[in-house]
Amino acid sequence: MKLLEERILKTGRNLGNGILKVDGFINHQVDPTLMDACGKEFAARFKSVGATKVLTAEISGIAPALLTALELRLPIVYARKTKPVTMPDQVFLTLAPSHTKGRTIELIVSPEFLAEGDKVLIIDDFLATGQTILGLVRLAQAAGAQVVGIGALIEKTFDGGRELLSSVGVPVEALAVITDMTDGKIVFAASGA
Amino acid sequence: MKLLEERILKTGRNLGNGILKVDGFINHQVDPTLMDACGKEFAARFKSVGATKVLTAEISGIAPALLTALELRLPIVYARKTKPVTMPDQVFLTLAPSHTKGRTIELIVSPEFLAEGDKVLIIDDFLATGQTILGLVRLAQAAGAQVVGIGALIEKTFDGGRELLSSVGVPVEALAVITDMTDGKIVFAASGA
Repeated sequence: MKLLEERILKTGRNLGNGILKVDGFINHQVDPTLMDACGKEFAARFKSVGATKVLTAEISGIAPALLTALELRLPIVYARKTKPVTMPDQVFLTLAPSHTKGRTIELIVSPEFLAEGDKVLIIDDFLATGQTILGLVRLAQAAGAQVVGIGALIEKTFDGGRELLSSVGVPVEALAVITDMTDGKIVFAASGA
Repeated sequence: MKLLEERILKTGRNLGNGILKVDGFINHQVDPTLMDACGKEFAARFKSVGATKVLTAEISGIAPALLTALELRLPIVYARKTKPVTMPDQVFLTLAPSHTKGRTIELIVSPEFLAEGDKVLIIDDFLATGQTILGLVRLAQAAGAQVVGIGALIEKTFDGGRELLSSVGVPVEALAVITDMTDGKIVFAASGA
């Protein structure tokens, strides 16, 4: 998606070690107009998968997932990383190693909001190692729901997430595909338009 | 706002001790269409305050703040509760006691995204004790920015937050104003339509 790639080149920063700083428009400050365009693009790419619910992980997946869900007129559920007092005692919980945080995080969903019969479209900000998204897949499967698609704003192909997710057997879409971040570069895949 | 009040009565649950469970449409599962209507309502109520930025706190403030900002065509900044690796070493940080969490939380904003000259509209999910919102006010003031308005989806008047915020001297708007939650009741203020 040209608009997102241009914004990454203009405002994003390659911090080295494969870390892309996008907190000027995705992660801390958010550009709602850009996120709305991304949500509409996801909605178009996944319009025929028959999703009944959009699933993401707090925190930075919320903006793109919410605007995708708004366009598709679906509810969105965000997996919590800590269990709030309002959640029932019995939950779906999985552990996912976080590359950027350097530790394992918990992903928690209440059985009130994910159930058998749900067709789940997973939307997140990054597809890097794929571990967070795979954690969301496990949560959906634990609930008896079916994953029907996976979308990420930004994919870093060199972290191998797409290969990890291939076993899920659903369409995986990324709006900006970065193939190389060595030596301060940010290189997009040719087909990313 | 009638739509929000009706949804609270239909799907919300009074858990006792003043705790309102709204994780079916605001806090865990989110109804994007309802949040979009709330964002448009905030935008209408604050259209003349001259905001240049919407400020909220992760996590549950993000949905209403994002859709308010989308309607107003403004960037949104969400204060982080933990400092990510992509944030500079020098940050604005304040402590806020959290009633629901039973402990003090950190609210952190990067000086990259909040600065002198910014006119800040604060949007959050709840106005209860007002401590989180007051923390956001302190962050804005520390950055030299000016707070121009405060909006919350749901106000619980019996927690006293509106009095606490009166010293800020800006318009405070809540879309659903709950005056009483004793004995399992959920009672709205008469003017809440």
